[in-house]
Amino acid sequence: MTELKPGERWDRLMREDLDIIQSADHFAFSIDALLLADFAQTKASARSVTVDFCTGNGVLPLVLAQRTQGKVYGIEWQEDVADMAQRSVCHNHLEDQVQIIQGNIRRARDYFAHDSVDLITCNPPYFKVYPQSPLNPNDSKAVARHELLMTAEDIFQRAKILLKSRGKLYLVHQVERLPELLLLADKHRLQLKRLRLVYPLPGREAHIVLLEFIKNGQAKGLRAEPPLYIHDQEGHYSKEVAAVLYG
Amino acid sequence: MTELKPGERWDRLMREDLDIIQSADHFAFSIDALLLADFAQTKASARSVTVDFCTGNGVLPLVLAQRTQGKVYGIEWQEDVADMAQRSVCHNHLEDQVQIIQGNIRRARDYFAHDSVDLITCNPPYFKVYPQSPLNPNDSKAVARHELLMTAEDIFQRAKILLKSRGKLYLVHQVERLPELLLLADKHRLQLKRLRLVYPLPGREAHIVLLEFIKNGQAKGLRAEPPLYIHDQEGHYSKEVAAVLYG
Repeated sequence: MTELKPGERWDRLMREDLDIIQSADHFAFSIDALLLADFAQTKASARSVTVDFCTGNGVLPLVLAQRTQGKVYGIEWQEDVADMAQRSVCHNHLEDQVQIIQGNIRRARDYFAHDSVDLITCNPPYFKVYPQSPLNPNDSKAVARHELLMTAEDIFQRAKILLKSRGKLYLVHQVERLPELLLLADKHRLQLKRLRLVYPLPGREAHIVLLEFIKNGQAKGLRAEPPLYIHDQEGHYSKEVAAVLYG
Repeated sequence: MTELKPGERWDRLMREDLDIIQSADHFAFSIDALLLADFAQTKASARSVTVDFCTGNGVLPLVLAQRTQGKVYGIEWQEDVADMAQRSVCHNHLEDQVQIIQGNIRRARDYFAHDSVDLITCNPPYFKVYPQSPLNPNDSKAVARHELLMTAEDIFQRAKILLKSRGKLYLVHQVERLPELLLLADKHRLQLKRLRLVYPLPGREAHIVLLEFIKNGQAKGLRAEPPLYIHDQEGHYSKEVAAVLYG
């Protein structure tokens, strides 16, 4: 049995039959990460390479490894969080397929060759950092929620370099950052191909958006998928989200 | 009674209690125009100025005039279509409030002063023109559907000049052109503030999108509204669309 450190607990991903270490001291994975995993169209091939930027406690690599025979990597800057993710990988006996890299995605070129990655996922910090923001870069939760160590542009810049031609970047982000994300994607030659708005419940405004970009794709052919609701009108998880969580 | 020319017919906008001339030889207004009229947040003030680009048979000015005390203008390039729109204006006794201008939006600066317009609407030609497109610029329906006489960029460029600071541009367009539209908006300093995806029916992909841009707004604060469905699962108009059509 993998040992837990102080403040850590096991959480269970029921559908995937996986256990994952969470910690009260760090950002716990949210439903957003699981929705992104479901939105991503993984490549099943054993030769495929998948990389998760800003992997946190490794939830995306653990889940994506269930859908591909290929290698899955997660990059996480914070040492103790990367260590937590690596212990979850070992506990689930996935160490031959999944590797956690402790590092900054700004140095992604040190870890992967140009044009070598099939698929990149990223559930990044959602919030910009303004000069007046009273944020502490040593605060683990602040780093996971705010762009203290990387920005949205870093994601597109590094994805463009790492991805093979026709490789895909999957991103979940705040709705209000959509215009900015599309400008960055254009700047780095990634084309938006699929979009899905996520609503807290029917009748409300969308809070997050799931995005699929392709490298060297045509500008034409964006598909806007049906809305995804987290809850139904009664406040229960929607059927779709319940299926993601519980199988 | 206003006289009809050969090939023309009266159509009735039931909710607005308006009659409008349509013609088999020209592009008839679609439900898209009525959805855009509903999406637009009109200014009630008698001093407000509203302009509809690519007005066609004038459906948007006629409907918008019901929601504002201010002046409403429609710009239409095709002479016979502009004439049809003007006759509908007169028939509905709106000639003091609504004026149809026969001209190209590329010459919009000839008709309106800089920074003088509160609100612009546009239900433009949806399709790009490629060199190999076998399209005839003398074909009235081709002109209404394809960017033969103006492009998406013309809309943003002219809107930026005409609109007052904080003035709004409302656009309905194909979903697949969304990334391009956001690049053009950014180029011409218009910020996307509201977005609503329109689906033919639940479970399908969205085909069009309603967009609100603001001049000199902040980049922050995009709102993605609940989905709009044209039909329900049984193939009938959705309640929302039936209300737009029939009141």
